[in-house]
Amino acid sequence: MPEPPYIAVIFTAFRTEEDAAGYAEAAARMDQRAREMPGYLGLQSARDAEGFGLSVSYWADLAAVARWKVELDHLEVQEIGRERWYAWYETRVATVMRQYDWVRKFSN
Amino acid sequence: MPEPPYIAVIFTAFRTEEDAAGYAEAAARMDQRAREMPGYLGLQSARDAEGFGLSVSYWADLAAVARWKVELDHLEVQEIGRERWYAWYETRVATVMRQYDWVRKFSN
Repeated sequence: MPEPPYIAVIFTAFRTEEDAAGYAEAAARMDQRAREMPGYLGLQSARDAEGFGLSVSYWADLAAVARWKVELDHLEVQEIGRERWYAWYETRVATVMRQYDWVRKFSN
Repeated sequence: MPEPPYIAVIFTAFRTEEDAAGYAEAAARMDQRAREMPGYLGLQSARDAEGFGLSVSYWADLAAVARWKVELDHLEVQEIGRERWYAWYETRVATVMRQYDWVRKFSN
């Protein structure tokens, strides 16, 4: 990940119980598609057993986010999501200003 | 959640397999403690079966984030986290600029 500032898109969603296979296929396809977009920096996501999921995708700038939002395959999948896969979702667009990390040092 | 701008703290972590009970107790206690802090707006989190977790906490401003970072119980738990619970973690501080949501309309 580059030094800040860059953009984080925080996508929170609750899944329906419909069409798990179709959802998984589309999620994998969109992950691949996003990687091909200019300005894509990365994706982190987790879903708990109850169907609540949190995904954060990272982008170089707002122009990259805007291009991804209207990418044709992605638009189609967004529509299917509203028809079948999601009970609700929230999207937040945020500017990352600071980051820090920590990694355990292993001693053998 | 108020209208933007407000702050999102994106915390990504990979758990060790150590001390699951101690971690769960501390997570519940910190959730409660955070709710008592001025400027706290909310928390969303999900963890997958492999131990990868994503939490986003929301705060009114950077001063509220700074107070929470050094709150005494929270500092103690951060230290135990590095000793036992986490293999690695990343923290990002971001300013939310836009938000939108969607909810399924149920028809009976």
